[in-house]
Amino acid sequence: MSDEVSSRRSRITPEREAELHGAVLDLLREVGYEALTMDAVATRTRSSKATLYRQWGSKPELVARALRCTQPVPLAEIDTGSLRGDFGLMVQYSDDAQMAKDTALLRGLAHAVHESPELHKALRDLLVEPELNGMQLMLQRAVERGEVSPDCPALEFVPHVIVGAFIALPLIEDRPVDRAFLGEFIDAVVFPALGV
Amino acid sequence: MSDEVSSRRSRITPEREAELHGAVLDLLREVGYEALTMDAVATRTRSSKATLYRQWGSKPELVARALRCTQPVPLAEIDTGSLRGDFGLMVQYSDDAQMAKDTALLRGLAHAVHESPELHKALRDLLVEPELNGMQLMLQRAVERGEVSPDCPALEFVPHVIVGAFIALPLIEDRPVDRAFLGEFIDAVVFPALGV
Repeated sequence: MSDEVSSRRSRITPEREAELHGAVLDLLREVGYEALTMDAVATRTRSSKATLYRQWGSKPELVARALRCTQPVPLAEIDTGSLRGDFGLMVQYSDDAQMAKDTALLRGLAHAVHESPELHKALRDLLVEPELNGMQLMLQRAVERGEVSPDCPALEFVPHVIVGAFIALPLIEDRPVDRAFLGEFIDAVVFPALGV
Repeated sequence: MSDEVSSRRSRITPEREAELHGAVLDLLREVGYEALTMDAVATRTRSSKATLYRQWGSKPELVARALRCTQPVPLAEIDTGSLRGDFGLMVQYSDDAQMAKDTALLRGLAHAVHESPELHKALRDLLVEPELNGMQLMLQRAVERGEVSPDCPALEFVPHVIVGAFIALPLIEDRPVDRAFLGEFIDAVVFPALGV
């Protein structure tokens, strides 16, 4: 997002923004990404299409921002002083109902991501990269504190292991990740692999 | 697959079967699952639709069997005497070009799996379950040989970690899993988590 767009967006209230994001997610669930139009978003939220384009730039960006607002807390904002604490808080902030809804939404988007490079880029820039960077910071602090060896070969694979769990569990066991699974998984796999 | 279908299928030669599976995969790549018809498969392979239905049962089953035949060796057939040896052979049998093609194919199928419970079931029964069972056997033997503690909490998550890596790497790094990644990933994450 450019600074210009950012300053434009700051003119609407957080409540109005949340309302708009909620409407986008509702429409996504109802009709899917391909059939979602800026017209429908404008009608549903009683705003003009010009406002939507001015404030969100494009449909892929609007969708990526709406998905981002379902996240309880960005990982980059978690800093408890220990890796166990950081991951523990990440698990604690996770909401079972929200994760189930997100899993269904993201599964519905898989095809659209494949078809639309713009959606792919928006999800990567606004959703995936910030969380990966947040996780990277957590791990870096753990290395600096001496909790994890800087040579630990598992360090670079932690994002793959955690992102993978979110996708593999629905595939293997036909159920979305919940807080209990996430906590057990991190205790059983991530900490031992990191030597924590 | 019922025994009856199995005995019927045994009447065609392995070469003819491989040719047919190859044609199904080509068509899948060309037109996608939804647009793939038994008519097109019959035309491409110069067989009758009746033969296809008699020998493969249905389009979802035919597609699942065709995908299965791209696997070099079923995991259940790998037994080297050690867990490191078993996973090592699994990595060694992996073919980079084939994994890249499979990743593209499976990504293309994601939408179809979501829409078709029959395809979902066929992929699960013919592709996913046999491999998960094969991995379960590998781990069970490792426990029996004393290589892994029977109480190791990572045991139940090994499939999630490995299946997850195959999906997370393309998402995070925009590239399919190759043999080098798979080997490093197993060394860095799976063995330490299992205490091997």
